[in-house]
Amino acid sequence: MTAFKDELRRVGEQIGEFIQNDPFPETVRPPALGDAVRDYPGRGGKRIRPALVLWACELFGGDREQAVPAAAAVEIYHNWTLVHDDIIDRDELRRGKPSTHVTIRDYAASKLKAAPEQAAFFGESLAILAGDVQQGWAVERLASVADRGVDPALALTLVRAMQTKLNRELISGEARDVEFELLDPSAVSIPDVMSMINGKTGAIMEFALHCGAAIAKGAYEPKSPDFVALSRYAVNLAAAFQLQDDMLGVFGDEKVLGKPICSDFQEAKPTMLYLEAIHRLPAERRPELDKFLRLPHYTESDIAAIRALLTDCGAAGAVRDSIAALSDCAKKSLQPLPDNRWRGMLATLVEQLLIRSV
Amino acid sequence: MTAFKDELRRVGEQIGEFIQNDPFPETVRPPALGDAVRDYPGRGGKRIRPALVLWACELFGGDREQAVPAAAAVEIYHNWTLVHDDIIDRDELRRGKPSTHVTIRDYAASKLKAAPEQAAFFGESLAILAGDVQQGWAVERLASVADRGVDPALALTLVRAMQTKLNRELISGEARDVEFELLDPSAVSIPDVMSMINGKTGAIMEFALHCGAAIAKGAYEPKSPDFVALSRYAVNLAAAFQLQDDMLGVFGDEKVLGKPICSDFQEAKPTMLYLEAIHRLPAERRPELDKFLRLPHYTESDIAAIRALLTDCGAAGAVRDSIAALSDCAKKSLQPLPDNRWRGMLATLVEQLLIRSV
Repeated sequence: MTAFKDELRRVGEQIGEFIQNDPFPETVRPPALGDAVRDYPGRGGKRIRPALVLWACELFGGDREQAVPAAAAVEIYHNWTLVHDDIIDRDELRRGKPSTHVTIRDYAASKLKAAPEQAAFFGESLAILAGDVQQGWAVERLASVADRGVDPALALTLVRAMQTKLNRELISGEARDVEFELLDPSAVSIPDVMSMINGKTGAIMEFALHCGAAIAKGAYEPKSPDFVALSRYAVNLAAAFQLQDDMLGVFGDEKVLGKPICSDFQEAKPTMLYLEAIHRLPAERRPELDKFLRLPHYTESDIAAIRALLTDCGAAGAVRDSIAALSDCAKKSLQPLPDNRWRGMLATLVEQLLIRSV
Repeated sequence: MTAFKDELRRVGEQIGEFIQNDPFPETVRPPALGDAVRDYPGRGGKRIRPALVLWACELFGGDREQAVPAAAAVEIYHNWTLVHDDIIDRDELRRGKPSTHVTIRDYAASKLKAAPEQAAFFGESLAILAGDVQQGWAVERLASVADRGVDPALALTLVRAMQTKLNRELISGEARDVEFELLDPSAVSIPDVMSMINGKTGAIMEFALHCGAAIAKGAYEPKSPDFVALSRYAVNLAAAFQLQDDMLGVFGDEKVLGKPICSDFQEAKPTMLYLEAIHRLPAERRPELDKFLRLPHYTESDIAAIRALLTDCGAAGAVRDSIAALSDCAKKSLQPLPDNRWRGMLATLVEQLLIRSV
């Protein structure tokens, strides 16, 4: 456990330093845009995705230093999607600090003396462009593994995988999530939600692992047994992680969570927890749950009533069972892989992500 | 002249067909997002940028078929910037049809029964994501020249040039243009405007030419004389083109222009024409011009007064002289290059772009 936390800290330091020293954002103009480009990737966070790149590389005996730019690339890629997501979801905070469009909005209001509406629009406009530059940065940084001895043909293959499979799956996942908000949540099917989760969370975990493995092996072979095992691990880990997120959103502690309890109900999100409930409740009892959708505010007694409903109908138990089964699958997926320290890190990650101590 | 128009039509057909048959957007979900991804690149337009790729390839005796995916990539790259620009500039039309965020807004209102405000926000959200997918598509399509026999190391180099130089220069140009709108137009300097123009228009023309030349030569050598000549041509062509655009915006014919006369004055844009005027007018006469900034509507007599002011102070003549000088420079830049049919196409393009018959 200490070994795991030490190793995750080491990844954080290595990637944080690499991103801070990366000259890419320096020539971006105006300087406020350049600052915005470096902002999120430099903020830290758990650095799970770069850890997956580095650990998969080490798992197969690769040279970690060769994989560092790829690990940074995956982190930057994740962050450009967050910049655009925060505009789309109107989120004003990211990791406890103002989100990109808010930072630029405040800059326009204070430094450029823009009127409030003009400043808000300028903030969104430049945040769109910041994410666009970050996508370019991520591609360039991945391609730059060729400067550390990776065969240029393999570097090109990895860039193509990033810009076809990862790009389309991740953005399609985000787009479906946005579309769900326009639909009656009960009209969304469980497979739709699982596929959305896999796009939004699983695809980049899978890509990170494949990237590290490909650099170690000198070949990108997504259909080979080792790559397929890593894919299975990623899909199950991402799904378990997302279901756990749904549970914490209702049953968690607001202080630990960092956002209001039941915000998924407020946004009328078709979470697995909600869908399990409406499939279990008889039709005449559906309004008991649905009256809690889109409330302006959730009182203690609202929260207690939602928790009781979800527990009594069996939905909470069903989701807990799914999380346990998915976690188990994720760990079992690792069995065909080399039995070494790095496989141990991946197994511990499953447990740690679920208890959210990382 | 007929040869030039026939050749440009051939480029249009070749690229249009390539983009229509490209499977990339097919797996994007929801299908409305996939349709949006293919929409602008499939609309046609002049196809000047792909022509620059193909003609530069032919200029140096390259295999045109190898360069076709690169030409499509440059066109798709240009189009993702248009999708995001149209959100930022709140443009509702693009090439005579609804812009991407408007198409998706209307889809959400009619098919998903979204309320007007919700539909508008959904339109912008999915248009952001459509541009994001298109950036990925452009990178993948450029990388795919390796499937047509281009050395993978060269393909990787071209991808890196696209995602470093082109990405940063183009987006920085757009960001400065957005920032200019927040500033007093007279506070913007002429070098600032020229640098913005080079970012927004010149960088992609230069990249297109370098791409075609690199595929023909089997090497990307931006500091070699041939590449430098192409850069000079691109910079001068782009600047001449943009200044001509400024002139037409005031002195042109509304029907041919497709937008209202004096819209740059309405948006208080620091065009070269405006900056030349305020540098020529004595300080006490500045209000005569500035009173025409940001009017809700421009009458015939407003337009006549603006035209007279710009002409009398010598600004219009100065900009016309600059256009002639820049065009001349663009054509002279071609002199060191092989004297063949394709160099002739590039020379004719300068004349045609300026008289806007293409």
